[in-house]
Amino acid sequence: MKKALAIDVGGTKIYNTIVDESGNIVADVEKRATPKTFEEIRTVLKEIVQKYENEVDVIAFATAGAVNNENTGVLGSTGNIASGYPNMDFVNLSAKRVFVENDANAAAWAEHVLGASKGCAHSVMLTLGTGVGGGIIVDNKLLKGKSGAAGEMHFKLYRDKRRKCTCGAYDCFEAYASGTGLRLTAAEITNVPNVTTYDVIAEVNAVLEQTKALEDTHTKTERLQKGILSKYVEAFLRWQDDILIGCIGLADLFDSDVIVLSGSMAEFVDVDYIEKELNKEIVTTYTKVRQASAGNYSGMIGAALLALGVGN
Amino acid sequence: MKKALAIDVGGTKIYNTIVDESGNIVADVEKRATPKTFEEIRTVLKEIVQKYENEVDVIAFATAGAVNNENTGVLGSTGNIASGYPNMDFVNLSAKRVFVENDANAAAWAEHVLGASKGCAHSVMLTLGTGVGGGIIVDNKLLKGKSGAAGEMHFKLYRDKRRKCTCGAYDCFEAYASGTGLRLTAAEITNVPNVTTYDVIAEVNAVLEQTKALEDTHTKTERLQKGILSKYVEAFLRWQDDILIGCIGLADLFDSDVIVLSGSMAEFVDVDYIEKELNKEIVTTYTKVRQASAGNYSGMIGAALLALGVGN
Repeated sequence: MKKALAIDVGGTKIYNTIVDESGNIVADVEKRATPKTFEEIRTVLKEIVQKYENEVDVIAFATAGAVNNENTGVLGSTGNIASGYPNMDFVNLSAKRVFVENDANAAAWAEHVLGASKGCAHSVMLTLGTGVGGGIIVDNKLLKGKSGAAGEMHFKLYRDKRRKCTCGAYDCFEAYASGTGLRLTAAEITNVPNVTTYDVIAEVNAVLEQTKALEDTHTKTERLQKGILSKYVEAFLRWQDDILIGCIGLADLFDSDVIVLSGSMAEFVDVDYIEKELNKEIVTTYTKVRQASAGNYSGMIGAALLALGVGN
Repeated sequence: MKKALAIDVGGTKIYNTIVDESGNIVADVEKRATPKTFEEIRTVLKEIVQKYENEVDVIAFATAGAVNNENTGVLGSTGNIASGYPNMDFVNLSAKRVFVENDANAAAWAEHVLGASKGCAHSVMLTLGTGVGGGIIVDNKLLKGKSGAAGEMHFKLYRDKRRKCTCGAYDCFEAYASGTGLRLTAAEITNVPNVTTYDVIAEVNAVLEQTKALEDTHTKTERLQKGILSKYVEAFLRWQDDILIGCIGLADLFDSDVIVLSGSMAEFVDVDYIEKELNKEIVTTYTKVRQASAGNYSGMIGAALLALGVGN
């Protein structure tokens, strides 16, 4: 069975492991902090490649930043990784074949091949983390666009300049639907400037515990609405509705079978609520909303599957 | 040379002509008002088909409403055509082969084969008329989605319920970027409830005439900004910025080569302004913005080309 050395290069962490063509992780997952400079990142990647390249058929990178249509390099970085990073010569890091894909695109592919969008020709995946990533599958193929940069979630939720996004523009979906967005919404609503995402989630969990008796007959969102009046919960529900608003637009544009929510913040979202409310509003046909199910390392798994030509 | 009987069924008018496989209109264009009832529409279509079917190889419909992936019928109507219309049995209107596509999708195909997006693998076309239609081309193919309804422009420009859209939801792009949207924006800004789109365009043209001396060194939008202070012009510029906001989101999602503006309202838009401002904000690569160039009958031409298999 063919195998790929899979490496996930993010703004804060670099992960690596080995993935086989069934999408199984067949080695330990190693993790280290992403160095601050281009040269240091290059040295780390070179070390990982040299250590494992003889055990595998291909090197598969899942990386921050948009990746070109040749799957050889990064077009532009995300702003939270060393500024020289787009110059990385991935192909020459190994004598073996090297394949590069954007991390959200790779994760979307893992969901498509073996996760929540398996069997669906059309899907949209959102990774809700510090930022928001997007991976879109049209007719069983990744949507890449003219240069490889498609699937960026910077459509606007307002048009009157309320909140600046990390991209430099205002009011992008990412600026509201991300974990950072939740924190900013909570700071606005509570007037506590240093409120953390953790504070909000802790309060949400407390209210869910308090309303546990309603669990059989009420959704998570209904229980939050019925719980103690709390600015934190209000912020959470506003954040969830921001995600809903974005999903409505995406469902109408792509008429996808399913919208998959992935990333560290996704588990807190009531996908049944999003699915129910979304289908009241869209003009296209019924669209499912699901939690991702390909696991924490879906970026590495998806990059490996793409590099090994699985699912095409 | 093969030919198609092309029929455009809209909410207010039905057009028909004959189009050859080069996209040339080779017969008179006939036009009549769209009848109010399903039965009357069916009778009219039947008459047109019977009159011309012997002269052509295929019958090509460009129609209001989303069309299924089999290109045989309408999934749902647009609200401004007889309510029974989605039940139309297009296939049995003729003994010849019948092909049906959504009017905006068909127009996007005409632009792709012989118009403003010719040679572009990735494009987004917006038809700005009474409403807003969308036709999206990904990798030289029409984006249809799971059921055929993709490309609906009902993503939201606000998330705090300001203006109801014809679809029943609030603050859809269509509710702002359409001709109807311009009228409503003008009514809001001028406090003249019965202001018409014509009033706004007349004022815009007057200001452009007044600032004609600046034409060599200033864009159309700059000339409007420098003209007499007018609520009508303010409404026009707001409308144009609403279109810009939508185009930014679409460029980031699709990374398309070009966004094409089509429909009766498109000619008033300063596409150079949209292109310039859009490329300041997007996180994907440079995206062109162009006026449509396949002409007034691009819906019929595109449906004919699709039915004849041209451009695939």
